[in-house]
Amino acid sequence: MEKLNISPVGYVRSDVIDRVRAPRQGRDASVDARIEILPHYKDAMDGIGQWSQLLVICWLHLANRDTLTVHPRRDANAPMTGVFGTRSPARPNPVAVYTVDLISVEENVLNVKGIDAVDGTPVLDIKPHIHRLDD
Amino acid sequence: MEKLNISPVGYVRSDVIDRVRAPRQGRDASVDARIEILPHYKDAMDGIGQWSQLLVICWLHLANRDTLTVHPRRDANAPMTGVFGTRSPARPNPVAVYTVDLISVEENVLNVKGIDAVDGTPVLDIKPHIHRLDD
Repeated sequence: MEKLNISPVGYVRSDVIDRVRAPRQGRDASVDARIEILPHYKDAMDGIGQWSQLLVICWLHLANRDTLTVHPRRDANAPMTGVFGTRSPARPNPVAVYTVDLISVEENVLNVKGIDAVDGTPVLDIKPHIHRLDD
Repeated sequence: MEKLNISPVGYVRSDVIDRVRAPRQGRDASVDARIEILPHYKDAMDGIGQWSQLLVICWLHLANRDTLTVHPRRDANAPMTGVFGTRSPARPNPVAVYTVDLISVEENVLNVKGIDAVDGTPVLDIKPHIHRLDD
């Protein structure tokens, strides 16, 4: 299988340290988090403060990657469903796409609301959320 | 730098073979494409036909990864902006998040509308688009 050459551009810093206790979805919980961008990529943040909503694309490093079907919403009565049809963190490539509110920008840090990822989660990319494209 | 172990779960099949001529953004162009899921991951598609909109997360393998600032919308008059504040394909990790309409499902193929990626673009993940989370 083709291997892609991917390294994080930063990491999530949050008070969430326990995957099991993490809120089910960031936007339900309105959890505050910091995104620390690695110094090498700081210039890629220039002008980001003009946006009120961002997409933060994370790599859920603790997720189970061998699971192809799950009970949606951890509901044992819900029929088993392929993970591509769910938002379960368990999936072959545990990429998470969070739509977050940008609260403030300081140096190489973005303060955001709406991420449930555990402290130390790798960040792959950040983009503006644009209604025409993303809604 | 930490290296992540990521392999594609499938590939985009489309008539777009030239990166320069590709439409600027998939949803503007309403381009049809096929997502071919690798046989190993086919079970992860179970039940996906219930959704009308999906997020398709791609790896833009032809993008320039060394660019940290760009003129947004390829407009030379627009001030240089960090790529995290733009939807430019040029970025350290060229992950694309497409919100697409799911037209049909056949075996290991998803027929979708709204992807401008060139033929052969790796697909990292597929999720349902859920308004509460993504709008």
